[in-house]
Amino acid sequence: MTHASEHVLDAAIRLEPADAGGLRGQTHPAYANMVGPFGGIIAATVLNAALTHPSRLGDPVALTVNYAGPIADGDFRIEAVPVRTNRSTQHWSITLTQADAVTITATAVFATRRDTWSATDAGAPEVPAATALPRAPAVPPAPWTRNYDMRFVRGGLPDRENPPADLDSVTWVWIRDDPPRPLDFAALASICDAFFPRIFVRRPRWVPASTVSITTYFHADAALLAAQGAEPVLCTARASHFGRGYHDQAAEIWGRDGALLATSHQIVYYKE
Amino acid sequence: MTHASEHVLDAAIRLEPADAGGLRGQTHPAYANMVGPFGGIIAATVLNAALTHPSRLGDPVALTVNYAGPIADGDFRIEAVPVRTNRSTQHWSITLTQADAVTITATAVFATRRDTWSATDAGAPEVPAATALPRAPAVPPAPWTRNYDMRFVRGGLPDRENPPADLDSVTWVWIRDDPPRPLDFAALASICDAFFPRIFVRRPRWVPASTVSITTYFHADAALLAAQGAEPVLCTARASHFGRGYHDQAAEIWGRDGALLATSHQIVYYKE
Repeated sequence: MTHASEHVLDAAIRLEPADAGGLRGQTHPAYANMVGPFGGIIAATVLNAALTHPSRLGDPVALTVNYAGPIADGDFRIEAVPVRTNRSTQHWSITLTQADAVTITATAVFATRRDTWSATDAGAPEVPAATALPRAPAVPPAPWTRNYDMRFVRGGLPDRENPPADLDSVTWVWIRDDPPRPLDFAALASICDAFFPRIFVRRPRWVPASTVSITTYFHADAALLAAQGAEPVLCTARASHFGRGYHDQAAEIWGRDGALLATSHQIVYYKE
Repeated sequence: MTHASEHVLDAAIRLEPADAGGLRGQTHPAYANMVGPFGGIIAATVLNAALTHPSRLGDPVALTVNYAGPIADGDFRIEAVPVRTNRSTQHWSITLTQADAVTITATAVFATRRDTWSATDAGAPEVPAATALPRAPAVPPAPWTRNYDMRFVRGGLPDRENPPADLDSVTWVWIRDDPPRPLDFAALASICDAFFPRIFVRRPRWVPASTVSITTYFHADAALLAAQGAEPVLCTARASHFGRGYHDQAAEIWGRDGALLATSHQIVYYKE
């Protein structure tokens, strides 16, 4: 079912009731990756299962998504279980299966939040405005990249023919959904995975690589996300260590007025 | 059952077979916290359920532990299920219950690792040797602190009577098990949670605070951990953002010869 006015992200993460309390979704061709779907849209879909659950309490604080096996194009099933609900927190176990094989395991923590002392110790880098930078071209083998307006300050894919001598793993990039869409928890969860694996940025050659597990902490509440609207977010990503087939990635997502919307971490498999 | 020569950490994380494929463990008084057990030893115990499982493949790469509810002193049950085993990776779902109530949800990724290109982009801070620093006294209301030799370079608990004006959330501390014990994955998982909540370091007052979710990425393989032996590890911890009742914490665990053994992230609840 398509809805004429629906944003493609909403179409991609849409879930419908299935038997035995489960949910049914489908991979969306607009968010296809080189093999299978873009991991970010899967994280958003898994989160959406809790966001749309009738027992939901509060808003997401933490989300961990483990990519256990390849997801084939087509239908999938999600089970989202609120395994424990406390006065102000709720813990979710979520599983995505295809033909009874587990392809995603996930956990989420939701909470009702209230005002407390606050401080931001990290700082956003000083960068040009998004409008002062060119939009990066989409990467044709990765159709999902067409759904993001990305403007790199530094750390795009290196020129593999003439790589600079001082490659590092740091990226600063403005990102927004394209077409523009007001930011919410699902869209933010997806953006947190919208960085090229650090191994692609750090080395001037392509090797197979894929996210194995991602954890996102939501510092923004719903009101702060609403205030962000459809404006681009400033994202930073870097790796600490590459070795024996795995590297980490740490990302920050900055909103208007220096608000830190989310921090996100992942561990990435790479070959060679 | 006690074993005369057994390290107290091994006693604390020990599990025995229970009915229906589950495991049975007990909280250990030596790792008690102010309320309930120290979260680090629970993370180590949960990981140990997978480490000691007959179907285990490879070594831990990622571990996420969600603290869903309070753990009472006494017995608990763990279910550790290898939900998907691939050629070189294995995904675990692990649950800890007491009286049928879920108190911990967890996921883990194990993998067989092989040599690849490697690089460490992060850097350990320049600090004095552990032996040149005084051991911090244990914190009496938190018995678990007696099991760690901690030597702070910076960022211990501030003097709440005469706090410095420039408090930040950064800690650098040497840590080892006490009595000394060769480092392994379980001990490392526990050390990753052995930092005071950043809110205690950042503000000169005590407020209720507790870890809600922790994710650790293991960069070290078993051989690198074995080479570490019982030497102290150098740990760094900092927060990015405190707000609306939750703050993050990012930690690095450095071993001998500048080896990054693990990076670990958590989200912490705090009040006021």
